[in-house]
This record gives sequence, C-alpha cells and structure tokens, in this order.
Amino acid sequence: MSAPRTVDVLFSAPQDVYDEFHPAIMAALKSVGVPARISPELAPEDVDYIVFTPNDLIKDFSGFTRARAALSIWAGVDKVLGNPTLTLPLARMVDPGQREGMVEFVTAHVLRHHIGMDRYILSSTGWDQTAPKLARYRKVAVLGLGELGGACAQMLSALNFDVHGWSRRARELDGMTCHHGAEGLTRALSDAEIVICLLPTTPQTENVLNAQTLALLEPGAVVINPGRGALIDDAALITALDAGTLGHATLDTFRIEPLDEDHPFRAHPKITISPHIASLVRVDSSAGVIAENIRRGEAGEPFLHLVSRQEGY
Amino acid sequence: MSAPRTVDVLFSAPQDVYDEFHPAIMAALKSVGVPARISPELAPEDVDYIVFTPNDLIKDFSGFTRARAALSIWAGVDKVLGNPTLTLPLARMVDPGQREGMVEFVTAHVLRHHIGMDRYILSSTGWDQTAPKLARYRKVAVLGLGELGGACAQMLSALNFDVHGWSRRARELDGMTCHHGAEGLTRALSDAEIVICLLPTTPQTENVLNAQTLALLEPGAVVINPGRGALIDDAALITALDAGTLGHATLDTFRIEPLDEDHPFRAHPKITISPHIASLVRVDSSAGVIAENIRRGEAGEPFLHLVSRQEGY
Repeated sequence: MSAPRTVDVLFSAPQDVYDEFHPAIMAALKSVGVPARISPELAPEDVDYIVFTPNDLIKDFSGFTRARAALSIWAGVDKVLGNPTLTLPLARMVDPGQREGMVEFVTAHVLRHHIGMDRYILSSTGWDQTAPKLARYRKVAVLGLGELGGACAQMLSALNFDVHGWSRRARELDGMTCHHGAEGLTRALSDAEIVICLLPTTPQTENVLNAQTLALLEPGAVVINPGRGALIDDAALITALDAGTLGHATLDTFRIEPLDEDHPFRAHPKITISPHIASLVRVDSSAGVIAENIRRGEAGEPFLHLVSRQEGY
Repeated sequence: MSAPRTVDVLFSAPQDVYDEFHPAIMAALKSVGVPARISPELAPEDVDYIVFTPNDLIKDFSGFTRARAALSIWAGVDKVLGNPTLTLPLARMVDPGQREGMVEFVTAHVLRHHIGMDRYILSSTGWDQTAPKLARYRKVAVLGLGELGGACAQMLSALNFDVHGWSRRARELDGMTCHHGAEGLTRALSDAEIVICLLPTTPQTENVLNAQTLALLEPGAVVINPGRGALIDDAALITALDAGTLGHATLDTFRIEPLDEDHPFRAHPKITISPHIASLVRVDSSAGVIAENIRRGEAGEPFLHLVSRQEGY
C-alpha cells in the first residue's frame, strides 16, 4: 500500500470557531490516520475538502475544482442550499453530542411545563397538593422525526408521554404514533398540549405553525421551538398567546439572530427566550464526524450525512 | 367451587381521602371478583382487612383478631412502624402511577438544574451562547434504589447522566454505578453535582445528608429531596447554602407538613419548595393495588409489598 496523501482542507469559519475547532479536527484526522493541512485561506483549486460554517463566508463555490466534498460543521445548511454554485457533495453535521444536548434541552422544557415547575421557582408560599397529570395522559406533538426530532420523541416516549410524531414522509418509530403529510399534521397537532418544532426550514415547513395550525392545539398548549425561527408565524404566535388560546412559548431559534433586545418576544410574559443553545455543536464529537468523512472521501467510501438538494435536508 | 365470601374492610383515613378512595376501591374489588363491604368504622373483631393511611387514626391494633393484613395507601409507613400492637402483615403502597409521577418530578428538577433553566425563566435578555455541559459529564447520586429511587436512577441513566446509586445493601442496576454501605456512601456522594434523596426514614438514614456528607459534593451542587424531610440535617443544609458550597436545594418533603409559612426554608433564595407532590398517590392505580392484595389474601397467595419490620421498609 502506498502512503496516504496529505490532504488540503480549507476551514472557512468565523475566527473564534476556527480557533476552537482547528486543533480538534487536526487531532481527529490524526486518529483516523489521514495526514492533513488545515488552512483558513487556500486557493480554491488547491482545496481537497471544504470544512465550513454554512453562512455567507464563501459566496462562490465554482472555483473548487478539485474538492471532493463540502462538510458543514452546523446541522442546519439551509443558508447555502440556494447557492447554485454549490454542486459538490454537501454533508451536514450530525453530532452525537449535539443530539444529546438537544434531547436534554427538549426533555427539560417539556417536563418544566408538564409538572408546572414555574410556580415553585417563582413562589415559595402555599401548600396546594394538586396532583399534576401523569405524562401518559398528555399528548405531545413532535414535528420532525430526523436525527434530533426522532431522538427527542423517543426520550419523551420513554417518559410515557403520549407522543405523536410528524414528518413529511411516512416514518415508523417505536413507542409513538407517527403521522405524515398534510392530513397527518392536523392529526398530530389536534388536542396536543405540547408541540416541539424540530423541522428543517424548507418552503414546505416555513410557518408550519400559523393561525390555523395553532388553533388545533389544546387550549393553553405550549410551543417549544429549538428548530428554526421560520417554522413559526411570529405574529400568529403572539396573537394566540395574547388571546390565551396558547399558554406559553419557549423559543431557542429566531428569524434573525442574535434576537434584537427590542424584539416583542423579549418582553412577552408568556415567552421564554434562550440564545440558540439547544443544540450547540460540541467540538470534540463533531470534529470526529468531520475527520471520519474526510477519511471516507480518501478511501472512496460514501460520505455520511449527505444533504439531498431536492428535499433540502 | 363455593361462592367467595364477602369480606369486611375497615377503611381508616381522613374523610376527604375516604370519599375519594371508597368508590375506586369498591370498583377495583369488583373487577377482581371479591365481594366486599367497606366501612369507615367497624368493631375490630369483625375486620378482615385494614386499609389505612398510616398516621395515628388507629392507635391500638391488638383488637383486630381476625384481620389478615393492614394495607397502607401511602408508600411511607414509618409513622406506624414503631407501634408494637401492629403485628399483622403490613403492606405499603407501591403505586405504578406514583412511581411514574416521581420519575417525572425528579427528571424535571434534575434537568432544570442541569441545563441551567432558571436563568431563562427569570430573564429574557442577553445572548450568551455558553454550551451547557452534557449529561454524560455530570455525576448524579441517587440515594435509595427501591421502587422509586431505582426507577428515577434508570431514567437518569437513559438520559446519559453519570448515575451513582446508593443503597444500604448491595444492589445491581443496569446503566449506573451502584454503591452500598458507609464507604459506598462516600463514593456515591464524592464530587456529585446533583443528589436525589429517595431513602425511607430509618434510624440509619436520618440526617444522611449532614455537614460531613454535604462537604463531599462538588462545590455548587444541588440537593433534590422528594423522599423524607428527616433525611437532611436542616441546619447543615442552610449553612452549606449560605456558605455557597451547596448551590441549591429543591425540597418536596419536610419534617413537619404542611411546611410552616414562617419556616426559614420558605424565604431562602436558594431553596425551591414544593408541597409534597412528587409522589402523590393516584387513586385509580393505587385502588387496584389494594384490591389485588385483598384478592391475594382471600386466595391464600402471598401479599405484595410487605414491609420488613426489622429493616423498616
């Protein structure tokens, strides 16, 4: 066997991300036996692999004539999907640490509302021993049954919630009722008390929660959105909260981030804001995924987590 | 086969409990095929089964010469264990609904502290994207691996927490490190970031969390006590919270309940109070357990959930 070639990796990311990931990816490549150079800038024609944050740092991918793949370190790649110059195989990040963090965030916020925790955090008086409803009597809708949504749905099922999952195409997951398509969305949302949004943003999913679909929920229901800001019609959300038909919204993603300090979500008493932390990429575990995909590229094996351009995820 | 006899059940409980449980137990007995009369008062010598809340409503059990068992509708029976006249087989309540409720409460409060949820509930400003630690890097000690503690420990293990269980006698549960005995307690608590108390109160477990054992925890650790108030040395708890070595305490049980409105726990900024709701008995499921034990008594089968007088649980 000939010695493996040294691959040239362009790592296009904001400086702080670069500084954090560079040593981790170098270490991960070494551990899978791929000699590599990683640079923040390279002539396009010299690049073997693009590792990048899919924002707008690279606007034109047409010069990367030798590159075998564009490997995102973010799960969401919707910001580059519309770029017609990106015709390379595109892999999104599926980070086991990110999945674990998402499951922990979602489960925490579902249980917060389920047991009515706020009243005890906000007040230490009284002795009202009303039993909270058991999870098995509470319908939870999980919109999106991909890597993250599926993992959250399964944990909520393990906690005995009456889980109804929804995905665009038919899927089957143990321990829950799975729905798909437009009629399935109505069935998943009808009388749900908690809704979790973990869909990608596509033309089909934008504003999936709007005045009509929010009206399907149980009165007083809670929306948790750690997915994408554009999944929710912001004005319809505030209208439903103000009318009391919706009880609370916990939002971790927004149409424009960071969320403006003057945004009406900030001051709304029925909205909890978190700064897009539900599924932060974890450096160590995601560097391992990048390295594994470069190893596969060198070995001629299929890449992990390739994005379908037609479906948008 | 002869027709089953009609059994006489004394149901000794506060009036509101009686009113709630009486129809549920009658229905459950009917569904297991045991004809029965249930009364709040009966001559002791006419009683076949005692169903009771183990407070002090019955002080002298010596007249129940015909009774086959005393069946508690509470999980905790420590208030009657010292009664020398209670020599009948004594069963405590192991209610599947109660176990589910406890798992939901404990998991909710563990995750609340784990992801640092309070900061988002209490404030909607800022955009600090610091990643919370993953559960797999957080040591959680579960004191007590019985019906409730074991179920909580297994759910926390399913969430990837580094679970260390402790029980008086050696036990093995999948997915966690199990400790026992005095040395095991030190190992379970050392560097733990979250501690859950689900032990029964016995002379051996009273004040199990005291100045010495609290000092073993990771600085800033959190104590969650849905078990028994007497498991914690109250003064040591407040001292540790005030010193900052302990970060927070979430208390659902107290030495005297209802907790006095003037109790120092109420006003403490690092204590969350809930009114002994973590494991409320659920009427339907626990009535089924009572009926099953009466059916077993009539059929000559062993009772479920018998309490060992020596061990106190």
